[in-house]
Amino acid sequence: MSQAIRFQAQAELAEKVTVDLEKVRYPHYGRYLEEFVPGQVFVHPRGFTFLAAQMEGFARTYLQCNPLYLNEQYARAMGFLGLVASPQMVFNVVLSLGVQNDSEKAMANLGYYDAQYLRPVYALDTIRSLTKVIDRKERGAGKPGIVTIRTLGINQNDEVVLQYQRKIMVGGQGDRPSTTPLPPSALMPAFPWVDDAEVFLPDFPAQLASGLTGPNSYFEDFSVGDIIVHSNGRTITDEHLSLTYAVGNTHPLHFDRVFSSGLSGKMSGDPIVYGGLVFAWLEGLASRDVSENSVWELGFTEGYHTQPAIAGDTVAALSRVLAAEEAPGELGKKFGIVSFQLIGVKNISAANALAKHGEDLFIKENDKKDMGKEKIDEKIFEIERRLLIRKRG
Amino acid sequence: MSQAIRFQAQAELAEKVTVDLEKVRYPHYGRYLEEFVPGQVFVHPRGFTFLAAQMEGFARTYLQCNPLYLNEQYARAMGFLGLVASPQMVFNVVLSLGVQNDSEKAMANLGYYDAQYLRPVYALDTIRSLTKVIDRKERGAGKPGIVTIRTLGINQNDEVVLQYQRKIMVGGQGDRPSTTPLPPSALMPAFPWVDDAEVFLPDFPAQLASGLTGPNSYFEDFSVGDIIVHSNGRTITDEHLSLTYAVGNTHPLHFDRVFSSGLSGKMSGDPIVYGGLVFAWLEGLASRDVSENSVWELGFTEGYHTQPAIAGDTVAALSRVLAAEEAPGELGKKFGIVSFQLIGVKNISAANALAKHGEDLFIKENDKKDMGKEKIDEKIFEIERRLLIRKRG
Amino acid sequence: MSQAIRFQAQAELAEKVTVDLEKVRYPHYGRYLEEFVPGQVFVHPRGFTFLAAQMEGFARTYLQCNPLYLNEQYARAMGFLGLVASPQMVFNVVLSLGVQNDSEKAMANLGYYDAQYLRPVYALDTIRSLTKVIDRKERGAGKPGIVTIRTLGINQNDEVVLQYQRKIMVGGQGDRPSTTPLPPSALMPAFPWVDDAEVFLPDFPAQLASGLTGPNSYFEDFSVGDIIVHSNGRTITDEHLSLTYAVGNTHPLHFDRVFSSGLSGKMSGDPIVYGGLVFAWLEGLASRDVSENSVWELGFTEGYHTQPAIAGDTVAALSRVLAAEEAPGELGKKFGIVSFQLIGVKNISAANALAKHGEDLFIKENDKKDMGKEKIDEKIFEIERRLLIRKRG
Repeated sequence: MSQAIRFQAQAELAEKVTVDLEKVRYPHYGRYLEEFVPGQVFVHPRGFTFLAAQMEGFARTYLQCNPLYLNEQYARAMGFLGLVASPQMVFNVVLSLGVQNDSEKAMANLGYYDAQYLRPVYALDTIRSLTKVIDRKERGAGKPGIVTIRTLGINQNDEVVLQYQRKIMVGGQGDRPSTTPLPPSALMPAFPWVDDAEVFLPDFPAQLASGLTGPNSYFEDFSVGDIIVHSNGRTITDEHLSLTYAVGNTHPLHFDRVFSSGLSGKMSGDPIVYGGLVFAWLEGLASRDVSENSVWELGFTEGYHTQPAIAGDTVAALSRVLAAEEAPGELGKKFGIVSFQLIGVKNISAANALAKHGEDLFIKENDKKDMGKEKIDEKIFEIERRLLIRKRG
Repeated sequence: MSQAIRFQAQAELAEKVTVDLEKVRYPHYGRYLEEFVPGQVFVHPRGFTFLAAQMEGFARTYLQCNPLYLNEQYARAMGFLGLVASPQMVFNVVLSLGVQNDSEKAMANLGYYDAQYLRPVYALDTIRSLTKVIDRKERGAGKPGIVTIRTLGINQNDEVVLQYQRKIMVGGQGDRPSTTPLPPSALMPAFPWVDDAEVFLPDFPAQLASGLTGPNSYFEDFSVGDIIVHSNGRTITDEHLSLTYAVGNTHPLHFDRVFSSGLSGKMSGDPIVYGGLVFAWLEGLASRDVSENSVWELGFTEGYHTQPAIAGDTVAALSRVLAAEEAPGELGKKFGIVSFQLIGVKNISAANALAKHGEDLFIKENDKKDMGKEKIDEKIFEIERRLLIRKRG
Repeated sequence: MSQAIRFQAQAELAEKVTVDLEKVRYPHYGRYLEEFVPGQVFVHPRGFTFLAAQMEGFARTYLQCNPLYLNEQYARAMGFLGLVASPQMVFNVVLSLGVQNDSEKAMANLGYYDAQYLRPVYALDTIRSLTKVIDRKERGAGKPGIVTIRTLGINQNDEVVLQYQRKIMVGGQGDRPSTTPLPPSALMPAFPWVDDAEVFLPDFPAQLASGLTGPNSYFEDFSVGDIIVHSNGRTITDEHLSLTYAVGNTHPLHFDRVFSSGLSGKMSGDPIVYGGLVFAWLEGLASRDVSENSVWELGFTEGYHTQPAIAGDTVAALSRVLAAEEAPGELGKKFGIVSFQLIGVKNISAANALAKHGEDLFIKENDKKDMGKEKIDEKIFEIERRLLIRKRG
């Protein structure tokens, strides 16, 4: 099982090797606009072994209240094989593993679309991430373009656990040196995206666990139009620098102040909180009121970070019910499907944000110009999400 | 074991659902004074699965030096079934799980009493928390009242691992909307508090582990009256915001600056450090000198947070020996019981606090008025605790 | 397996025990110069059980990119028994466990020498640490002296996993009270240091894992003289206070602002980042470019922290190739040995530091005086390290 090797003793060498400034290289990562080729597939490095303590730790950092992610016994009693990784963690890891290829040169993350969670992730699952370039839109010389990508998270059994699409804004290469090239590879890797994908859920037990979730977040509690103002906010500290690579994200904008303060424009200054973390906090803040009785996060779409956040900002959340439907087939006996609009604000309580901005909070920021409305500086995020939620029964 | 389901594709909905500001709700948690009914039992949500890495992580965050909580081999050699969750973690989790019902509306935590640790908590144990309302004292219109509660931590085998009592100051409802009601439930849950409870300890081995604990913290090292000044302090950073929900505590005072800065009075401004964390740090700072050779934390009483702490404060600790007795029966061959008064100070070293305040440090702050003495602003905590400590042999 | 004991109820005692200021003691730790006796061996307290989540957590906190430390599947496919603890974590823990005896009174860590990693550390291994005093150099009355120590990290099977030497600067006792004495012990503990030690490596499989590491960090990518400028930096936050005892380090300089701000000279002010953490961040920042395809960290020498770092500082790294050799015997078919000089800078990007300081960055700071050169304030660290790196094949 092991071999014993005796190596030569290490001797000091630096003085003996002349410094040759001609032999300098500057490896850097991400892709410039021209480097994205539609059809190209990136197999992202490293992968990520999910461990129970990190799954629980993630859930607690982001204020999750659904015991599926906090209580192993409860998760088993609900039919799962053990503690479940929170969908937010799965999303954050799958996206972050791809940053080195997809977006380490990105200027902005423009939106998330068509995210679908297809299978639970459990402790000791190892997830890797793949991206396919779908489209590259150039917008003229000197202007950044828009790249559309699809990303898959795949487990050690080659099963897709998550798929989603996102758009990113990327600048051109200009006269800058090329990024680190992909390994030459004869075969284009498979990219098993399925538009109409099946979701693999546990066979839920006849009798679901009780007593550990709130009384006011069952399927029957949600009607179309309901607006739920989540009471607590969360002040983000500079913990976010460390949390960024905790999920595998390598973009220096989020943890390197020399880099972030050297930028010009809106992103200049303190490191910007990686958006996936903001989404996770907002979802956690909403969880007591809307997802404590959820058994599956089906997915999300039309997700936009409308303002950046930095350390010191306090975020708060509101949810609005967009649909409440029966779950298909047998599943409908125990569960319904609820679609929510989740809105994030900063440095104002959710209640005060609603009092101040009213219905404008729920209008997509990008639609406002055409409607002759002003954007809301205090609004930081908007998305639509769909959950499978237990009936009170 | 699992079922494959095809859900309808998610379509964008927000634009199609009119925003109706009549359908807003503001769920909020905790209880106002009038909502506490003596005799009522709360089964707190979520529960908490203890994981080895989080147990070790907690012990390290709070500077624990007893290897029972850090070294699995040592814990087994001492007769335990594996790494032991530190009593501080158990206490923090059991209390925090109850915050949503007990104290998310509390204005102050007035004191901890009669805490007894009854069984070890090991990795993969899942702990849930129950509270019974013992007493509600009203102090006149417009004044906050005092609620006395008892809380139990119970493991997955329905065994009580910790019980304690606390008093909290709570304001009345006034014209504010009611908090989120408890689930209606036909049966009043059992509440297995036992005044004269048995403690379940391992059968300690004939030969205890050696070489991994300090030489100066055996039972024989403690005599009544000894004052031990712990050398190091710990500066609390804004890590405390995240650490609050890491133990399950949902009170926004500790992590929501919009909330905390909107308060009036002493608690206004930066988020206040949740008191249980302050206690944990103080206990950790004391651990090298008093509890490195402890095998059981019997419990504590008369615990008071006499001043709040915020990020940036540096805390330090002193211990005073109040009693040193033989352990009962056979246990007395190897162990003795030591009672300590643990005192916490802030922004001054423990040595300087003693030089400056002398014996006044050890007088309960609440007794000072009657004694014609001033309270000590630099003093933040006082408690009496009792440990089962190994004899040098 | 367990015994049920009924203890007497805890009663309040503090009021009844008179405060006696004659009975004060001030236990403190570390050793003054005179207390170090060449030949003496310290068996350090506590030990440290490595847990998978903490190993992965460490690797992520310090930006490691080698999947050996992040991906259990990859580690197994490379022939290891499971997820491998990063060498940086092993080093930090072994050193930190020794601080209580070795350096809690140290004024400076002067250098690391001859570090050799001899065996992998896996999850559930429990490591303890021993130190032997090698030399004590006094430099005249009132001046701090220099102590040379050797430290071993030993696993639960009594196998050495790491050995290294370091020099520390320590002040004399003067008229201060003695530190806490070692336990009297009849036997001098064994100290199994071996100069020419064997390294125990797994039997690497015929076919190594692929697809999860970068394309530009194979053995063939490194030639003597290459300078590699690592693109990203990392801003250190006050997370470092907590991270210090996360690896077991008890020196208050790193987490007690009352202590650190009470010092005089260069170390006065905010808590100084424990140097081992700085080394870990720099190594992590370099890992994408130089060690992602490494299978073993052989060791390091001539390591110097040339400037302190505090919270808020941003660190960045450069590597220079000092040697690139065949690995011995059969190992040479798959691996080569690369020696790197690793340089750390602060509050400037690595590229700008190179542009500004050129070859002077790579000259040992201690040699500069004799060369008539100025020291570089922005340079914080220098070391030589040796890796076993996979061939592209």
